[in-house]
Amino acid sequence: MRLKNVKGAKEKIESSTYLIEAPNVYKGKYYEVFNNNNPIYIEIGMGKGNFIIENAKKYPDINFIGIEKYDSVIVRAVERLETEKIDNLRLIRMDANEIESVFDKEISLIYLNFSDPWPKDRHYKRRLSSFEFLKKYDNIFKSKKHIIMKTDNRKLFEYSIISYTNYDYKINEISLNLYEDNTENNIPTEYETKFRNKGLPIYKIDVEK
Amino acid sequence: MRLKNVKGAKEKIESSTYLIEAPNVYKGKYYEVFNNNNPIYIEIGMGKGNFIIENAKKYPDINFIGIEKYDSVIVRAVERLETEKIDNLRLIRMDANEIESVFDKEISLIYLNFSDPWPKDRHYKRRLSSFEFLKKYDNIFKSKKHIIMKTDNRKLFEYSIISYTNYDYKINEISLNLYEDNTENNIPTEYETKFRNKGLPIYKIDVEK
Repeated sequence: MRLKNVKGAKEKIESSTYLIEAPNVYKGKYYEVFNNNNPIYIEIGMGKGNFIIENAKKYPDINFIGIEKYDSVIVRAVERLETEKIDNLRLIRMDANEIESVFDKEISLIYLNFSDPWPKDRHYKRRLSSFEFLKKYDNIFKSKKHIIMKTDNRKLFEYSIISYTNYDYKINEISLNLYEDNTENNIPTEYETKFRNKGLPIYKIDVEK
Repeated sequence: MRLKNVKGAKEKIESSTYLIEAPNVYKGKYYEVFNNNNPIYIEIGMGKGNFIIENAKKYPDINFIGIEKYDSVIVRAVERLETEKIDNLRLIRMDANEIESVFDKEISLIYLNFSDPWPKDRHYKRRLSSFEFLKKYDNIFKSKKHIIMKTDNRKLFEYSIISYTNYDYKINEISLNLYEDNTENNIPTEYETKFRNKGLPIYKIDVEK
């Protein structure tokens, strides 16, 4: 995603009631954040937040946490949430690499939407579907390991199919052209909405272990 | 494939030196057909034969067997072979369902090119990548199980990715748009050549177990 410097972003984010400021404090006890034992779904790289916000509204019995690294992006979600009251949603500002220091055996589902493809071979470990990340995820999942990924990037998707299955995930569902299938329950990201109008395929995979 | 009745096809095929007329006779000893112990690669549903014929010419140290059910299709391969002398190629006229009665632990690679997608859910067992067929293939592979599939049919491809990986095949390679990748060594089928000009993706997967 192209990043612009957004003036006052840091202050705006930190004053939001949605932001968990010291996320490692709740490691292993995120049920305290939500005051219930509902399943916790996270989106790593939530961007401007449409996907996670709409999911939280649609599924009140699931707790959602959006994770994003960049102030200039997360601030857009914070602004949108200013007039909202969504009890089952929180945001964390962090680098995905640190995920194991924030969660411990408490996540039921990870969403990876339009993640950075890191196209250069030598950067493959930075892809959020690499073995390096799958190993990290192993430690944050509660029991069943469950990942749902969407992307427009063919090479990232091909890589991810191989990575998941070599890591012994089984495929529940796959679509090589999401918008030609039934998208009745699909919640798009901001990027996805822009991209689909170009007529190129959006790929989706749902894997479990 | 749309089938036309071809006059004299049966006679023409049966007089070809490339046709193995009673293929079950060689079950477990196909090395006798070729007089050597080179690996045997088969194509199930070879159609008019371009793929298997060109492979046989290109790789003389591998033995190739093209399998096709329909006289009206196989006759096109036979006609093309009339003026050729390719020692490492044979053809078998049979239904893929009978494959276990013809081979026994002697095949190194199966090619599935543009197979019938059998789009109706109730027909899924007829797809050449269904568990029903993967079980049959288990009995004809020599040691390593190795399948390479190409198709233009998205739904068949999605189904096949799931079927192979649930059957514990690992993916060596996958392309969701073959002609955008390096196709230097790709040998197309007749159908593939026609289809690629429409600009729609051709899918390829290489799996092993």
